[in-house]
Amino acid sequence: MTGDASRPELRIGMIGYLFMGRAHTQAWSTIGRAFDLPARPVLRVVCGPDRADTERAAARLGWAEVETDWHALVRRDDVDVVDICAPASLHAPIAIEALAAGKHVFCEKPLANTVEEAAQMAEAARAASGRGVRSMLGFNYRRVPALSYAWQLMRDGRLGEIRHVRVAYLQDWLSDPAAPMNWRMTSRVSGSGVLADLGSHAIDLSQHLLGEPVNAVSGLTATFVAQRPLPPDVDAPAHGLDPDLRTGVVDVPDAAAFLARFASGAVGTFEVSRMATGRKNSLRVEVNGSTGSLAFDLERICELELYDATQPPAEQGFRRILMTEPVHPWVAAWWPPGHVIGWEHTFSHELRDLVVAIAEGVDPRPSFADGLQVQAVLDAVERSSRGGGWVEVERRPTW
Amino acid sequence: MTGDASRPELRIGMIGYLFMGRAHTQAWSTIGRAFDLPARPVLRVVCGPDRADTERAAARLGWAEVETDWHALVRRDDVDVVDICAPASLHAPIAIEALAAGKHVFCEKPLANTVEEAAQMAEAARAASGRGVRSMLGFNYRRVPALSYAWQLMRDGRLGEIRHVRVAYLQDWLSDPAAPMNWRMTSRVSGSGVLADLGSHAIDLSQHLLGEPVNAVSGLTATFVAQRPLPPDVDAPAHGLDPDLRTGVVDVPDAAAFLARFASGAVGTFEVSRMATGRKNSLRVEVNGSTGSLAFDLERICELELYDATQPPAEQGFRRILMTEPVHPWVAAWWPPGHVIGWEHTFSHELRDLVVAIAEGVDPRPSFADGLQVQAVLDAVERSSRGGGWVEVERRPTW
Amino acid sequence: MTGDASRPELRIGMIGYLFMGRAHTQAWSTIGRAFDLPARPVLRVVCGPDRADTERAAARLGWAEVETDWHALVRRDDVDVVDICAPASLHAPIAIEALAAGKHVFCEKPLANTVEEAAQMAEAARAASGRGVRSMLGFNYRRVPALSYAWQLMRDGRLGEIRHVRVAYLQDWLSDPAAPMNWRMTSRVSGSGVLADLGSHAIDLSQHLLGEPVNAVSGLTATFVAQRPLPPDVDAPAHGLDPDLRTGVVDVPDAAAFLARFASGAVGTFEVSRMATGRKNSLRVEVNGSTGSLAFDLERICELELYDATQPPAEQGFRRILMTEPVHPWVAAWWPPGHVIGWEHTFSHELRDLVVAIAEGVDPRPSFADGLQVQAVLDAVERSSRGGGWVEVERRPTW
Amino acid sequence: MTGDASRPELRIGMIGYLFMGRAHTQAWSTIGRAFDLPARPVLRVVCGPDRADTERAAARLGWAEVETDWHALVRRDDVDVVDICAPASLHAPIAIEALAAGKHVFCEKPLANTVEEAAQMAEAARAASGRGVRSMLGFNYRRVPALSYAWQLMRDGRLGEIRHVRVAYLQDWLSDPAAPMNWRMTSRVSGSGVLADLGSHAIDLSQHLLGEPVNAVSGLTATFVAQRPLPPDVDAPAHGLDPDLRTGVVDVPDAAAFLARFASGAVGTFEVSRMATGRKNSLRVEVNGSTGSLAFDLERICELELYDATQPPAEQGFRRILMTEPVHPWVAAWWPPGHVIGWEHTFSHELRDLVVAIAEGVDPRPSFADGLQVQAVLDAVERSSRGGGWVEVERRPTW
Repeated sequence: MTGDASRPELRIGMIGYLFMGRAHTQAWSTIGRAFDLPARPVLRVVCGPDRADTERAAARLGWAEVETDWHALVRRDDVDVVDICAPASLHAPIAIEALAAGKHVFCEKPLANTVEEAAQMAEAARAASGRGVRSMLGFNYRRVPALSYAWQLMRDGRLGEIRHVRVAYLQDWLSDPAAPMNWRMTSRVSGSGVLADLGSHAIDLSQHLLGEPVNAVSGLTATFVAQRPLPPDVDAPAHGLDPDLRTGVVDVPDAAAFLARFASGAVGTFEVSRMATGRKNSLRVEVNGSTGSLAFDLERICELELYDATQPPAEQGFRRILMTEPVHPWVAAWWPPGHVIGWEHTFSHELRDLVVAIAEGVDPRPSFADGLQVQAVLDAVERSSRGGGWVEVERRPTW
Repeated sequence: MTGDASRPELRIGMIGYLFMGRAHTQAWSTIGRAFDLPARPVLRVVCGPDRADTERAAARLGWAEVETDWHALVRRDDVDVVDICAPASLHAPIAIEALAAGKHVFCEKPLANTVEEAAQMAEAARAASGRGVRSMLGFNYRRVPALSYAWQLMRDGRLGEIRHVRVAYLQDWLSDPAAPMNWRMTSRVSGSGVLADLGSHAIDLSQHLLGEPVNAVSGLTATFVAQRPLPPDVDAPAHGLDPDLRTGVVDVPDAAAFLARFASGAVGTFEVSRMATGRKNSLRVEVNGSTGSLAFDLERICELELYDATQPPAEQGFRRILMTEPVHPWVAAWWPPGHVIGWEHTFSHELRDLVVAIAEGVDPRPSFADGLQVQAVLDAVERSSRGGGWVEVERRPTW
Repeated sequence: MTGDASRPELRIGMIGYLFMGRAHTQAWSTIGRAFDLPARPVLRVVCGPDRADTERAAARLGWAEVETDWHALVRRDDVDVVDICAPASLHAPIAIEALAAGKHVFCEKPLANTVEEAAQMAEAARAASGRGVRSMLGFNYRRVPALSYAWQLMRDGRLGEIRHVRVAYLQDWLSDPAAPMNWRMTSRVSGSGVLADLGSHAIDLSQHLLGEPVNAVSGLTATFVAQRPLPPDVDAPAHGLDPDLRTGVVDVPDAAAFLARFASGAVGTFEVSRMATGRKNSLRVEVNGSTGSLAFDLERICELELYDATQPPAEQGFRRILMTEPVHPWVAAWWPPGHVIGWEHTFSHELRDLVVAIAEGVDPRPSFADGLQVQAVLDAVERSSRGGGWVEVERRPTW
Repeated sequence: MTGDASRPELRIGMIGYLFMGRAHTQAWSTIGRAFDLPARPVLRVVCGPDRADTERAAARLGWAEVETDWHALVRRDDVDVVDICAPASLHAPIAIEALAAGKHVFCEKPLANTVEEAAQMAEAARAASGRGVRSMLGFNYRRVPALSYAWQLMRDGRLGEIRHVRVAYLQDWLSDPAAPMNWRMTSRVSGSGVLADLGSHAIDLSQHLLGEPVNAVSGLTATFVAQRPLPPDVDAPAHGLDPDLRTGVVDVPDAAAFLARFASGAVGTFEVSRMATGRKNSLRVEVNGSTGSLAFDLERICELELYDATQPPAEQGFRRILMTEPVHPWVAAWWPPGHVIGWEHTFSHELRDLVVAIAEGVDPRPSFADGLQVQAVLDAVERSSRGGGWVEVERRPTW
């Protein structure tokens, strides 16, 4: 337990301890050292389905106790914050029950697998807020310093009237047709696959940066490899897989692309893929406005490229800003200029802001309502991809 | 006149002498020095509407004589090749009459402003070919060494099964709403504006690289600034402009974006804009296949980025190949390794290949039929953008 | 305390808690989660001169107890490893006393301020090793995955015969003449200033990568701003500063450059600066061999550029390898491909390796003897810079 | 012959027609089209040792007549400008005789192989200037738009007080030990090899940009491959080669590096190599001043990177300026923004400026005196490399 010992404890209960659980644990364990927090996060309890596995994880990661039933975790008196790292299909029931139990909730993205679940969660969050209970959604890329600074620039009108936003989130771990099945390729667990996983980030970022929702979309999805081998040790039926053939059916997209219109007149182009060979985790964002542009690539997380069209004509150019100055968002907590931070730091930034919001009694962003609006766009893209051409996005309330 | 004096002359008649005319003249004047040509290009006659202006241009550029009527130029006995640098609305009549007169024709892109004109031109070219008369379309970017080598790689299957092609052709000379009107913003002269101008390049390149036509598209167009000031000295009525208000109506898109499906299953995303602030002439092409990827940006014309997924996993990465080695297409004609060439060299490459094709009696590519297929895609994008959702692209004959 | 609870504790005592102390603490707190360690690091005690300040730091960083006298810390029975983050002038006395007391020692770079001190430390480390006591020097950049992989490539002969090594370590925090004095500009505390601070990294890396020591050097140093203002709250006399004038004399170099020859015939060029405006923490390394080259920049810590001259001539190019694959050194402990790590992770890598070395009873590298050899080069550069022209580097024993 | 026919002819006689001769011919043939010249360059006569070869070259390149004796060319009444593309060992005799004959002289770099020859040439140029005869030295990289603009920025004090200049000119065509001998590896013809060839560019640029000569140097040279195979068809004895062994002795450096001090206090680091594997023609220049920095790489000839330390701290970064705007030096003569030019255009820029200088009756730069000062630095580097440590550079008169 780190952080100023004179501050009150903030006791965390985390559900799920794999990829996201590891990243959250690293952040919870770090923010007390890095930031001047109003409370001390305590790794109270972690929850997983198998007790032995969960105990091993708890020992390794530093959690004090374990649960195997998330209902039990949610009800514990010694938990202040429920941190949901479970699959998306569990987000709604856990979050709603936790909020009802008076726990602050931090939920990984995407908010849910359907608009209906998302709407219920947003309503639960709204109600909880009235009782002083906070909720926050883990669109961590809002808190990449470069993208947060980009948001400031756009809020301040530095890019002028926005014409283009261009977002591609490209990975390649499925390029090889021999890459085996996993739960991320099954719609029952992962919803719309790459669209939910990567597309939700892309949509949230664009709406966040532009300060307005997507109005309408026209899209397509593609599944390039429809059958994949099972991993050697998989429980085939549990994954909807054929145990004899040793292959599984991929029923989610490998890739998706869509065009978007914003109310302001800005035009968006979006693409997400798990089969963009050579792109490992390349979330590229470019925005073009009447007086400037910006560009970003998550593979170079500490760099923001800024084009300022108000500079003298002979000296205009994309400027590579190394986002490691103390004046950059969250950066003063880390290292001297030029000493780069990594992907995991985005989690520290969001959890730091959550702790502060809880202490200050304000609702942090991204809210569940923000997540609901993203879900509405995802839903419109899916409907468009099934042959609908342009689909209007339902405008959901933002509490 | 340069080139081996023992070789026969090839007498050029060029129509138009502004931007494209200057670039073509530079190429015609250079290729005899750079390449071992089967014939010596001779700058015989240049044609423009105003005699004094044309004579000044001829003197400056090195053309022996002038005409003010393109019909006269096309009929001259001392012209072997008609080089069309006139606006797109004139391409069809000039090309058809020149081919009928037995002249080889080199025509700037796009082929025409409508599918109908393009189809007539393609038919005329097919007929002329039977009489030994050649025609060629100026999609010069096929002859960027990097893109030609990319084509070779793809033809040889080096990228495996293609999943994604991603083309953005971005400029920014209209970002400023105060940038004045010109003929490129009037549909009567320039057809579909940026879509015809930049979109035609993007479409041709994608079809050329993939070796297959676009099957279907869903797109949008946008005009961000609908009225622009007139230039001080413009003949307003002649440009469809209001002479009192001193503003003109932009009736072509400033930008366009579309999704595309290819028969192979590959997915394409396309975007063109004249308002992508900071991007000056950025034609970016990226292709992702099952065993590799490539990336290119015209602003770095001498570089090709190649990702080879068959290399050892620890050593895979996008490789920046400086396309200045003698083994690269056309490059041996120029300078030693590392001594970069520029945009204008693409014209030398295409005109060199035209001269060789004429001498060898074969039809060069891109053909007018290639241009017709591009025109069909442009037409489909326009129809889609008018609310049509997905539009199938008509498959035109390729003679 | 994290890590597998069934493993024995490894109790750490750290001297100094500022910049380096924060980075070490982050690493000690993280490695048990990231790696499968043979022991559990425990943050037992931290030492600083002022008790109240040290207690605040201990609470914030998570250290259990504090000391104000490093002699006391070194003698504690409940400390297994002494981690030295004190100024370089204290490295020798602390390390020698700690080793004598049977503590494993991890010492920040540079090893010392003089060759004499360094030699004593190396001798003490040699003697301690015979008693099973380990020592390690914190040249953390050896454990940047990109540079570790570069070392493997060179060890395996992949670059062929080495001709050039080119190292520049450039920062700019002193570019502004108004930047105030601190202890890093006073030779009594910081030795040769930028030469010791950044030059030691550059020299160690080059010797490590080439697998041979620098033979001879010819160099220069420069102090561009000889007087700087005092910070408002500084204890002027303690820093050798003039309390009346409120300015201090910079008696260390702001920059240094030197040429080097290696026994193999390779030629090295080195440059370090704190006044290279715009370069924040740019440690650039380039090596050219007969069959390949590599290039690296610390500001893009997750990228290695590799040029393989055995590839087909048309396809050779510098390949940007994103060093985030599980096959890259230490990377499997972190996140999926493309999820970048930061500067701080280099400390986790070196401390992980220290913990393993202690458990396995082997001497880790970089050794104090490695640091002594670096010190010998630094000394030669200093002598050369005082007018000596080429200076041979004394070859120190490597135990 | 191009350019305005009403302007007087400027008749060129060129000695040498290989690599440099081709580049000059391309420039002489182009500038009349691109620029509004006060005279029309005419390719009057080209000179080479073998009549048949020279006639073939003349026909191909477009020269009207040939000579085989440069003395004859220099004396011709119909030659106004003598353009020297012969090996450096012939520069002095040709230039001195041509100037004496009243011909303007354009001489390729380096000025000569020795300081003595260079001094005689500079004196001859000074004397000729008094008679209205102009001379110019072909350091073409001064007229890369990016570097010319960099010079303007520095002249205007935009970078503040200069601390560092860092120049590396790296090629790799000798990386392979099997690359055969040629005249560039024989000191009798090529002087100090890579030092004269690439080093002269590096030195001239640094002195030009900083506006002051190098004061003192300390350097080294290296020949990594001392014997190389002969090309199959070489006249071995004529090249100082052993006809039996079929190998030749390389008696010039493959690489050189040196440190430099300028009177202003700026520090320079220089490196040139023909064995920097993967670097094809990479002339990298970086300058760091108190208020800004700039960086350039010839492999990206159209880009200048500018760091402006007077911008707000959060937004400082190296700005990639695409040097294709009409406001950039010489660029308005070429193509629209973003349409890149190549290496050959630097020759057009220098010859355009020569034609203008002749017409205006002023002495163009770089002058032979500039070349003499470069030669003095080269000489100092050579002496330093032979064991001299730091060597003062003799300050030569600049007329």
